[in-house]
Amino acid sequence: MGKVFFSVGMTLDGFMAPEGMDLAHADDPSFKNWLSQWMELQKWVFEQRFFRENLKLGEGGETGQDNRILEETFERTGVSIMGKRMFEGGERFWPEEAPFHTPVFVLTHQVRSPWERPGGTTFHFVNDGIESALRRAREVAGGRDIRIAGGANAILQYLNAGLIDEFSIALAPVFFGGGTRLFDGVDARRISVEIVPAIASSMVTHLRYRVAASPPAS
Amino acid sequence: MGKVFFSVGMTLDGFMAPEGMDLAHADDPSFKNWLSQWMELQKWVFEQRFFRENLKLGEGGETGQDNRILEETFERTGVSIMGKRMFEGGERFWPEEAPFHTPVFVLTHQVRSPWERPGGTTFHFVNDGIESALRRAREVAGGRDIRIAGGANAILQYLNAGLIDEFSIALAPVFFGGGTRLFDGVDARRISVEIVPAIASSMVTHLRYRVAASPPAS
Repeated sequence: MGKVFFSVGMTLDGFMAPEGMDLAHADDPSFKNWLSQWMELQKWVFEQRFFRENLKLGEGGETGQDNRILEETFERTGVSIMGKRMFEGGERFWPEEAPFHTPVFVLTHQVRSPWERPGGTTFHFVNDGIESALRRAREVAGGRDIRIAGGANAILQYLNAGLIDEFSIALAPVFFGGGTRLFDGVDARRISVEIVPAIASSMVTHLRYRVAASPPAS
Repeated sequence: MGKVFFSVGMTLDGFMAPEGMDLAHADDPSFKNWLSQWMELQKWVFEQRFFRENLKLGEGGETGQDNRILEETFERTGVSIMGKRMFEGGERFWPEEAPFHTPVFVLTHQVRSPWERPGGTTFHFVNDGIESALRRAREVAGGRDIRIAGGANAILQYLNAGLIDEFSIALAPVFFGGGTRLFDGVDARRISVEIVPAIASSMVTHLRYRVAASPPAS
């Protein structure tokens, strides 16, 4: 059976998204501020060939270890699960050919029919919680792994419920000073992790962990 | 001229000290709780031979890469500077032969004569700010580096003033869920850092950074 994992970027001060990174701010002047902060965090990603091709950002890009890590994460992923706000932001910014190329389950209260995109991505809207989304994801993952894509809230719900097997964090040499923390609200008494040795790079540090003692899912 | 650096432990959720780690709580029942949390964060250190010998904790201990890193940090340090609360905690818990074996400058409002310990550690109490402490530290560092030992508040003051050249963080696979954050209050607009590639280990990840663009000291 495939593993459940997440793989995200985090600043040195613990943030995965800057202040104001939501649809309400997408059109106001502070938009540029969060976008430039977010680009600092994701800078290494935008320089990788695999990412550039997948998002149709143009030719070229790095082809070393960082690129291989992105590609491996993509290849292992049979299904993604994401929160409503991540979807809403992506719906606005992804190219028509959304970059998943697999089924994607969106955690939302909105009732909506599946939304099929060119290139193999189909968004399914799940209204009955994280465990239901995970069950449905398993049915279509074809033995590959299931990625909890984000945002922080969806990741924390799965982590605290003991449903995450492993995760990786691309720790960027960046400070935000504010925003959405990745681990805000983590159940520190229940969740314990073990190191899988990090992969060093000069652009970002690839931290890797196995969740050692998952509590039983409630 | 020696470099100014800090080298501390941090949890995956960004804390360098658990909730209640202060003298006010040293004798109440919650003491055990912070102590056990802190021991989780520092666990890898207590298993290293160099640390065990230096704190007179007994024979044995690991002698690999993690041990070497601790020893190198000790060897490069000609002087330490610390905040008042770190000193007060240490005054209570360090062995008589304090583990510094160099001059130590304590940032405090208390006026007090130098306090000499067996083994070469002398504590000097500085009442006129971080820059004065640093000047005095340089005078006696003998060309070796100056370590801002802690706590978080002293480190942040030096970092935000542009006085830190480089730092390392032993990132432990531990969550606190609360406590004192290392980077709370970092001046994200002014401080920018570059990666020195991390050193991976199965106990802790040794993150290393150079401060790239220190603002001029005010």
